[in-house]
Amino acid sequence: MKERKNQNNAIYVGIDVGGTSIKFGIFDKNKNLIDKFSINTEIKKNCNEKHLINAIFDIVSEYCNSKKLKENKILGIGFAMPGPVINNKLLHAVNINWKKEYDIVSATKKRFGKNTKVCVLNDANAAALGEYNYTLKEKYESICLITLGTGVGTGIIINGKLIEGKSGIAGEVSHIRVDYSDSAVKCNCGNIGCVETMASCTGLINIYNRLINKDSTTKNIYRDNQSSKNGAREIIHLAKRGDSVALNALNIALDNLSKLIVILMHVYEPEVILIGGGMSNAGAIITNIIKKHLKEKVFMTKLLPNVMIAKLKNDAGLCGAVVNL
Amino acid sequence: MKERKNQNNAIYVGIDVGGTSIKFGIFDKNKNLIDKFSINTEIKKNCNEKHLINAIFDIVSEYCNSKKLKENKILGIGFAMPGPVINNKLLHAVNINWKKEYDIVSATKKRFGKNTKVCVLNDANAAALGEYNYTLKEKYESICLITLGTGVGTGIIINGKLIEGKSGIAGEVSHIRVDYSDSAVKCNCGNIGCVETMASCTGLINIYNRLINKDSTTKNIYRDNQSSKNGAREIIHLAKRGDSVALNALNIALDNLSKLIVILMHVYEPEVILIGGGMSNAGAIITNIIKKHLKEKVFMTKLLPNVMIAKLKNDAGLCGAVVNL
Repeated sequence: MKERKNQNNAIYVGIDVGGTSIKFGIFDKNKNLIDKFSINTEIKKNCNEKHLINAIFDIVSEYCNSKKLKENKILGIGFAMPGPVINNKLLHAVNINWKKEYDIVSATKKRFGKNTKVCVLNDANAAALGEYNYTLKEKYESICLITLGTGVGTGIIINGKLIEGKSGIAGEVSHIRVDYSDSAVKCNCGNIGCVETMASCTGLINIYNRLINKDSTTKNIYRDNQSSKNGAREIIHLAKRGDSVALNALNIALDNLSKLIVILMHVYEPEVILIGGGMSNAGAIITNIIKKHLKEKVFMTKLLPNVMIAKLKNDAGLCGAVVNL
Repeated sequence: MKERKNQNNAIYVGIDVGGTSIKFGIFDKNKNLIDKFSINTEIKKNCNEKHLINAIFDIVSEYCNSKKLKENKILGIGFAMPGPVINNKLLHAVNINWKKEYDIVSATKKRFGKNTKVCVLNDANAAALGEYNYTLKEKYESICLITLGTGVGTGIIINGKLIEGKSGIAGEVSHIRVDYSDSAVKCNCGNIGCVETMASCTGLINIYNRLINKDSTTKNIYRDNQSSKNGAREIIHLAKRGDSVALNALNIALDNLSKLIVILMHVYEPEVILIGGGMSNAGAIITNIIKKHLKEKVFMTKLLPNVMIAKLKNDAGLCGAVVNL
């Protein structure tokens, strides 16, 4: 096939759009990440889909200008978006005030030329695809990325392929119920006891506070903590220092997570469970507790998946966005 | 590529080995099922892997003799086996006294020639592959077959491919826990409240008996019923006639099953849930109750998979065994 664009100095652009920031990654023609930057996401009340996408395009153009790079050197642009995506179509995205479907592919081709390749993925799926392709694909075929942040993001790769499903619900395993006890918390999705609410940073804080309230001798320092990541970090810090309540809370949260992992094993037997997100910065304490709970639940330990900390961190979505271009 | 065997009158053989019978299916070169028969499985105490496989080979040879068909007309033989299979290797199979791994592929090639294609699958996976390839693949890409019999067998197809996993546990979703109540029953696998024990024919009888025992005015007719299929059939018969206890039991069993289906939706969004096994003979009452429970659990009804009765019945394993030859 004839090359459609001259590939000298050609680039791919990965864009990871979130509620608080928009990250941009510049990749060479071999999809090595060569530059990156981010901007704050300012979503004004009347900002609609078209405004936001045009603002993003302008930033890409400005970058090209600043590097004296002609826009026709852009081989492709990949988007990691915070909402359900089906066949390159983002259905909606509450965090960025994106209320209806908008044709990102057409808009991108209109702006940067019809030969520009475009890919639109859900952000958690993009992160899984990025981690898999950039760090694991030489050794493994099936993985699950689980990011433990304010919520729980998940993305599934089976036999080397991202699982998206016909309506974008596939891979959303954080809304599987794992806590059937009386203390199970209601999730934003409408269900109760989802992994999302019982194993995220927010979940960890809730569990810690519940335990603290049982034990009146300990001060509840996280009750009014607005930042779930900071709160979770402090609880993990206490756990590392041997605080029994904090360690107990971390055990309960990650036991909930291990129930999800056992379910995934029965469905498609992932070889690797990658833990990402804010909580993963705590490192081995997280993976060790998860492994301990898995061993309690699965008798044949040779069946257990590898549990590892994700490597790409904030670049995962950017990298995943360009994989299929 | 040169044809290795003359394909005139050539056949494929599918063999579905179970604890009570061994089924044989004869397929033409286009894999249409043209003949079938079965024999009782007589597993004597000292019968080992080699004895059984040779007995099976002898029956294939006898069939060829009786049809005046040369054995070199056998293009391939596929096996559906009652135990975990990895890469064409059956690890073990309790029901047929198969205690260790045995190389079925080599044994088959030794007996019928090295160009004979051989495929070994787990029986539930073979059934899923058979149902998918013979009845659904024109319209769908991802399905789950759930057979409700003495236990619950399951097989998963994602993007047209059977999911087997690296150690054969993938697709064994009947051992996912769905009942977290006090009445959850212990499963043979060692866990509690698995779909296997809470939604099978055996599970239905257990639930019915538990309800009956609460209500002392109703006679417990299934307490000593040894045949789970007959017992389940009678309960469903009562339910169809409006018996409230039987209907309640059926609702509880299929509610347990619907919890599994919701989990599968979150993982890979199957487009079709195929219900097979003895309980599926009851027809629409089964699928209607499952659909009702799914609607209660999933708000966006357009996300719901099609719930249908499997079509191939006892031929599913035979058909699946030859698909990959």
